[in-house]
Amino acid sequence: MSVQSPSPRLFFEAVSAYEKTEAIRTAVELELFTHIASGKRTPPEIAQACQACQASPRGIRILCDYLTVQGFLIKHNDRYELTADSSFYLDKNSPAYLGKTLEFLHTPKLRECFHRLTEAVRIGGTALPEEGTVSHDNPIWVEFARGMVGMMRLPAKLLADLVKEDTNKPLRILDVAAGHGIFGITIAERYPQARVTALDWRNVLAVASENASQAGISQRYSLLPGSAFDVDWGGPYDLVLLTNFFHHFDVPTCEKLAAKAYAALAPGGRALTLDFIPEADRISPAHAAGFALTMLVATGHGDAYTFEEYRKLFEKAGFAKNEFHALLPTNQQAIVSSKA
Amino acid sequence: MSVQSPSPRLFFEAVSAYEKTEAIRTAVELELFTHIASGKRTPPEIAQACQACQASPRGIRILCDYLTVQGFLIKHNDRYELTADSSFYLDKNSPAYLGKTLEFLHTPKLRECFHRLTEAVRIGGTALPEEGTVSHDNPIWVEFARGMVGMMRLPAKLLADLVKEDTNKPLRILDVAAGHGIFGITIAERYPQARVTALDWRNVLAVASENASQAGISQRYSLLPGSAFDVDWGGPYDLVLLTNFFHHFDVPTCEKLAAKAYAALAPGGRALTLDFIPEADRISPAHAAGFALTMLVATGHGDAYTFEEYRKLFEKAGFAKNEFHALLPTNQQAIVSSKA
Repeated sequence: MSVQSPSPRLFFEAVSAYEKTEAIRTAVELELFTHIASGKRTPPEIAQACQACQASPRGIRILCDYLTVQGFLIKHNDRYELTADSSFYLDKNSPAYLGKTLEFLHTPKLRECFHRLTEAVRIGGTALPEEGTVSHDNPIWVEFARGMVGMMRLPAKLLADLVKEDTNKPLRILDVAAGHGIFGITIAERYPQARVTALDWRNVLAVASENASQAGISQRYSLLPGSAFDVDWGGPYDLVLLTNFFHHFDVPTCEKLAAKAYAALAPGGRALTLDFIPEADRISPAHAAGFALTMLVATGHGDAYTFEEYRKLFEKAGFAKNEFHALLPTNQQAIVSSKA
Repeated sequence: MSVQSPSPRLFFEAVSAYEKTEAIRTAVELELFTHIASGKRTPPEIAQACQACQASPRGIRILCDYLTVQGFLIKHNDRYELTADSSFYLDKNSPAYLGKTLEFLHTPKLRECFHRLTEAVRIGGTALPEEGTVSHDNPIWVEFARGMVGMMRLPAKLLADLVKEDTNKPLRILDVAAGHGIFGITIAERYPQARVTALDWRNVLAVASENASQAGISQRYSLLPGSAFDVDWGGPYDLVLLTNFFHHFDVPTCEKLAAKAYAALAPGGRALTLDFIPEADRISPAHAAGFALTMLVATGHGDAYTFEEYRKLFEKAGFAKNEFHALLPTNQQAIVSSKA
């Protein structure tokens, strides 16, 4: 068999990829990484630590070996320890713990969306009723706000880097579909005179409000509950933040949002878009391009739009200039759109 | 952010790995690769070809981009083509088509086993009733026999390479839990005087029988229906084949099988075991080691045993010599156990 022979490797990896998903989910559910972090090392020790879940040493041994194969653990003889990444992100006692993020990403409704991918390809949009996840007051966005805040701290810092204003400028900021609010909050932390208006469903704003409070900026933080499409945005603002929002909608709806942003901005104001923005080929970078599939299964008409598509819709809304920024090392990209 | 910073990459890959599984499943279900192989190139062309499934061009475009990102397709402008691997394994008109294999690997019962991994870790075995997949006459083994035969042709050739007997020797072969029968059949094709007895459930033997017929060896092929544990194996045999069978059981049950093999062999006879046999560390090679998780979720007491564990149980049964063979480039390993 020559090296050039066809290989079914990629196929089998994809066919069995869901096993990895189940393994990491179970490990987090059983707090396996937390038990190992606390000094439990062998399967019987870990199983015993896991009292609430009553795990079996045999089950723990097989799961730990699998997680070692996948790179989440290190094994020496019959003892397991955490990798640096697992220690940082998967130990419940680490501030960067991603357990809540996993809970959001594995919301049964989202998983069901993917399980119904075949239907979604037929329909050209989510197979779930109520337009999937973008329906009004969907409680999924509270889970999102709680689950994704940890992951968004770095993108929020990189987005705040793009503001580049005088530190004492009394920036007026509208954070559209604020969610956890971390994008507006991070800018408010850098600009002590900035005031943020957070727009989202009322139940979601409760989470943003908590986070603003925790950041000590409550007095400069106000809430605007409702649908971004229906409520009056007020203004004028110096910055309108549109983070991970456009991708849920079709182009005409995105155009309406861009127009509303333009109208709410003061002259010289800017819209900051953060999103999954693939290259024109729509196949790179991998994560931004692949995100379109999530929008196919989870929304009626959402997509991962290219910079060219964003540029057109912002120009149509009246914006004079659009700049693209890859927010490396994160998987996200940004566009700064300026009003003349 | 330094290069040494912790990265959540591995975590997110695992959390979203199931999306790949859904994508390949949907693509095979919609015969996407077959349509592209037949010359359809753009999303509207592919969607139209897919008449039975009534796919939308938008759904096809997003799925094809995702499959391109994952390495299954190549994209030039808005046109897709197959990679060499996809063309060989995923076009329905290719003799090596793996669609049936996917159907077996995604049997709802097997997927449910994995979805209940947390319970399996607690219990130390499958969370499904009837001992998961090893129950009597389980129809899953007919699906297995039909689904896995394509994948097993290469391992079967490599196992037949280990026989190394005079071509005209009238080998008497027992193929235990024959399934598709391809292991015994491949040896019978190489040894024109060999006779094979295939042991399995009656419904499964119908598949082995078809395959023997197709290989033109029906006249040297006889059927022994029933449970490997209950029926009289007859004999004496020169070769007893134990392929992908031990891993379903606990050690005492494996010992019984080894003893039964020993008793059924003529002096100088050999048992050929093909299985997932990890190194003593149980974390390499990746596929053999990772297979233990499948046995945890799908069986009551199955495992991926090491060579050392096999050596012990074969010695206990009376075998004089055990040789290990990695069946590269496949993911499987073999042991040749000789009766003095």
